[in-house]
Amino acid sequence: MSMSPALQLWMQPRLQQVEDALSRWIDAAAPADLGQAMRYAVLDGGKRLRPLLVMATAQALGGTKEQQADLRAACALELIHAYSLVHDDMPCMDNDVLRRGKPTVHVQFGQAQALLAGDALQSLAFEFLTPEAGDATIQARCCALLARASGYWGMAGGQAMDLAHVGQRMPLQDLQQMHRLKTGALLLCGVQMGAVCAGLHQGPRWQALERFGQTLGLAFQVVDDVLDVTADSATLGKTAGKDAQADKPTYVSALGLAQAQAWADELAQQAQQALTDTGLTEEPLTMLRELTRWVVQRTH
Amino acid sequence: MSMSPALQLWMQPRLQQVEDALSRWIDAAAPADLGQAMRYAVLDGGKRLRPLLVMATAQALGGTKEQQADLRAACALELIHAYSLVHDDMPCMDNDVLRRGKPTVHVQFGQAQALLAGDALQSLAFEFLTPEAGDATIQARCCALLARASGYWGMAGGQAMDLAHVGQRMPLQDLQQMHRLKTGALLLCGVQMGAVCAGLHQGPRWQALERFGQTLGLAFQVVDDVLDVTADSATLGKTAGKDAQADKPTYVSALGLAQAQAWADELAQQAQQALTDTGLTEEPLTMLRELTRWVVQRTH
Repeated sequence: MSMSPALQLWMQPRLQQVEDALSRWIDAAAPADLGQAMRYAVLDGGKRLRPLLVMATAQALGGTKEQQADLRAACALELIHAYSLVHDDMPCMDNDVLRRGKPTVHVQFGQAQALLAGDALQSLAFEFLTPEAGDATIQARCCALLARASGYWGMAGGQAMDLAHVGQRMPLQDLQQMHRLKTGALLLCGVQMGAVCAGLHQGPRWQALERFGQTLGLAFQVVDDVLDVTADSATLGKTAGKDAQADKPTYVSALGLAQAQAWADELAQQAQQALTDTGLTEEPLTMLRELTRWVVQRTH
Repeated sequence: MSMSPALQLWMQPRLQQVEDALSRWIDAAAPADLGQAMRYAVLDGGKRLRPLLVMATAQALGGTKEQQADLRAACALELIHAYSLVHDDMPCMDNDVLRRGKPTVHVQFGQAQALLAGDALQSLAFEFLTPEAGDATIQARCCALLARASGYWGMAGGQAMDLAHVGQRMPLQDLQQMHRLKTGALLLCGVQMGAVCAGLHQGPRWQALERFGQTLGLAFQVVDDVLDVTADSATLGKTAGKDAQADKPTYVSALGLAQAQAWADELAQQAQQALTDTGLTEEPLTMLRELTRWVVQRTH
């Protein structure tokens, strides 16, 4: 993994915060081992890119207005991501048995429990966003953003497009729309919720951040498609070559490997430009810039 | 169906409002027919008891503070109910092919699409609750209530308990806890969200309404178990005798048919008493009282 010392230094305590919060906030005692299945799906794994994006964005804008609002949004977003993986891995979807180097949730707990664990993780995300005390405006805005990013005009819609196009050629424009929804929407949502937690929700700076989030999301997916071809399963922690095997349209199948890689670099540059367009000074932007580099240079 | 003329008169325009709103607010154009699958799951069916509870509660307390807040909460709650049915019917759960007299969603659209449609219906519920303009306090509170009622200490947790106990005897107390979560939580949530929309969220009146919602939820489930034994599939619009066949613990298997029926009547009386305990005058309570009678006397 290609990561600067500065990013590592910033990331380490925040990852710890996220892991601790997730572990503290997902109740192990929930009925009939449902909490256990949910913890299995979420804890000890994952790059936590989405939570880090929330926290780096809030920090770039001067920090969260309300204590822990950014941490709650960060963890909520990770729950949505985690639930999507649980459902995605099920036999009626991708039918995958390996995730982050471990048996997938349905292999470990059975399909019915995996279905319920995914469902309950989605609910729990909205619980995370709405603690009893707290700024109602931040809570309502974050719920609105997360709901839209997860739903039929977001992640779930992108997954439906994906399913509908297995084995089919897809025009590059449709492929882009699919990924904008399937993975882009949640990454953009991380940037948006980070901004909302810092008190920003409109204006030119908000728009520049949205462009940043959109471009980063696209870059992330292009890199994902490249890695599916170039990395091995051990490095990925999931089955490599899966998309090609399933005959799914990807940026690599659409553009070829070299051009896909070049495009990822170009998108990274556009994302950096969008950060410049926020008009923020360089110092607060540092970690968003570093995260962008990491997304493109990562090896898994 | 045993329903008073007064209830019918009150109900008819509100059912129409709910049907219209659901049809208007679930986007048929969502990607890859996902919107179509979601509309299939939600429209043209269902008693809409949960939405009616939201609206009757708000009305009992003087009406919604913000235009359409109660209608949005009502429809959001129905989406959660609908998604749970879609997932519940899937082969890895109850494996049911008939619902409200129609093929279930996975029979009609395939399992993967059914899984995604359920997921997206849950997201959409939180979208319904959080329109751009609107009272942030009502929005945040409703999201909090709905998330908790849907999640591992609510509906999903109750379903996990249900799954874990197929073929097992369950002490009456556990059975009650299971149903309090599985079906009771959403019905209670309807009462709570109705109250929040009317500006009430604490105090003795709130507590009396919570007792009402809890008792009504329990009564509803006892009647459901009774109907599973006494009604036929055509009347129910779903497979009758399913619980007995699946060897699931029910109030009928725990108490016997006659005692279960007697208990439902007793619970209905307790629910009526809780309404009296709100200290509201009789006139605004009329429709909550009527709905309670309907829940216990219904034939499907």
